[in-house]
Amino acid sequence: MENCKAGDKVKAIDIAHIDRGSKVRKKDLVVQEIPLTILLNGTEVATLLCSPEKLDFLIAGYLLSEGFINRDTKLGPIDVNPKGWYAQVTAEGKVTLFDGPARTRLVTLGCGGSLSFYRTIDAPGHELLSSSLRISCHKISEFMKEFQSRSVTFRKTGGVHACALCDENKILCYAEDIGRHNALDKIIGECFLKGLSLQNSVLLTTGRVSSEILIKLLKAKVPVIVSRSAPTSLATELAQKMGITLIGFARGTRMNIYCGESRIDTNDKTPLKT
Amino acid sequence: MENCKAGDKVKAIDIAHIDRGSKVRKKDLVVQEIPLTILLNGTEVATLLCSPEKLDFLIAGYLLSEGFINRDTKLGPIDVNPKGWYAQVTAEGKVTLFDGPARTRLVTLGCGGSLSFYRTIDAPGHELLSSSLRISCHKISEFMKEFQSRSVTFRKTGGVHACALCDENKILCYAEDIGRHNALDKIIGECFLKGLSLQNSVLLTTGRVSSEILIKLLKAKVPVIVSRSAPTSLATELAQKMGITLIGFARGTRMNIYCGESRIDTNDKTPLKT
Repeated sequence: MENCKAGDKVKAIDIAHIDRGSKVRKKDLVVQEIPLTILLNGTEVATLLCSPEKLDFLIAGYLLSEGFINRDTKLGPIDVNPKGWYAQVTAEGKVTLFDGPARTRLVTLGCGGSLSFYRTIDAPGHELLSSSLRISCHKISEFMKEFQSRSVTFRKTGGVHACALCDENKILCYAEDIGRHNALDKIIGECFLKGLSLQNSVLLTTGRVSSEILIKLLKAKVPVIVSRSAPTSLATELAQKMGITLIGFARGTRMNIYCGESRIDTNDKTPLKT
Repeated sequence: MENCKAGDKVKAIDIAHIDRGSKVRKKDLVVQEIPLTILLNGTEVATLLCSPEKLDFLIAGYLLSEGFINRDTKLGPIDVNPKGWYAQVTAEGKVTLFDGPARTRLVTLGCGGSLSFYRTIDAPGHELLSSSLRISCHKISEFMKEFQSRSVTFRKTGGVHACALCDENKILCYAEDIGRHNALDKIIGECFLKGLSLQNSVLLTTGRVSSEILIKLLKAKVPVIVSRSAPTSLATELAQKMGITLIGFARGTRMNIYCGESRIDTNDKTPLKT
């Protein structure tokens, strides 16, 4: 990890750029990736590959999303050592350290270290997510426009995903990471540490929407997800079962509503500001 | 998993398409995602979220890449049950079933279920990958052009990654998956099951190149990787240390060589066929 300073999100390296067989040496920016090992109450629980930014939010969100802690757990200070990229965190109250067989049926998908226990899906009788949120497609297009203009690292390197959380009026928080799961966990962690509810919020993402993303949303009780990209079949099925509104390919004034249409108001036809 | 037939890579679902506040109901294709649980000699080792295609290759490649088996292990028939999406496989010889602490320092990154044990990176004295392969940038551009024209599912759904393996002359095998790690494991598994060496091959990918992808390449002894997308800082550092040629943003006649330039011949300036 030489040349890797804490907080640096991009790194300049020497490359050879080729065009039609002609070679030019130049500097290029690549997105930073670090392996972050998390110790919870002294036990190593995971090593995430992630962008070195908002690591406290990432750790809190990861532990919560993956069921190591719950909303009533009291987290102590999160102590990140940037030299070795490990973090120690203590938790009081409900703490689950998976061990042996409980760990086997795990699932890892999508950019951004995460263990999701597929028993979550298997578990019968998950409650339908209830939320009174209603939002216009016009507002969603406005959010997506602002969201994309924020992603400086993406524009520099083409190598990160971004997530943002909005209420009915504005973007509340924003996170980037090389992993789309990590970006979402950073948002979930930030809200957890700040005591914010996600119950009437809209999650924006640049990444594809797979079943694991849906499971994270369900646990965090986020009722609406809007992606620039495609969902998978399993994600659309889960969204339907869970009562989550799933929107994909949200670009400009266009979007596809895969399910949960009743939360989206199409009557507001105000043109997008350019 | 209703409506999910074995082998179906895409699924037609009803959506509401919005454009400037006008709603049109239509059919849309989404890419299939299934949870596949792997039992190795009767022990559940992982559940991967993946595309339901070439699952035998995926399973063999995953077990090999992640160190459950090695090249000398004899795999029995791979028995995939499409109804419950689980697969049973037996192995004779070297089989490592990780248990307890060995499993903790794992890393999960990138689209496509994988456990990579970060001890691989930590392990000192990894041999530099040796290969006499030399290839022209012109040939690489030709490969990328053919590679991209193959991805039918991507063009239908925008939801999959693809990988292909080439020798100096042609594309040898091709795989798609919702996860970029899975797509690579399918290639590695196919070569393992068919007894093909990867030592003088070039790996093409649509996906971003993170450290885990590099570790898989190192284990499989693939000397050159070419991506349409961006690498991370850790991937470029690892490629340098491992002696792997890493090329990113290969589009049209352009590409960036991040390291291992000596394997790439820039003298061939034949124009690309259009």
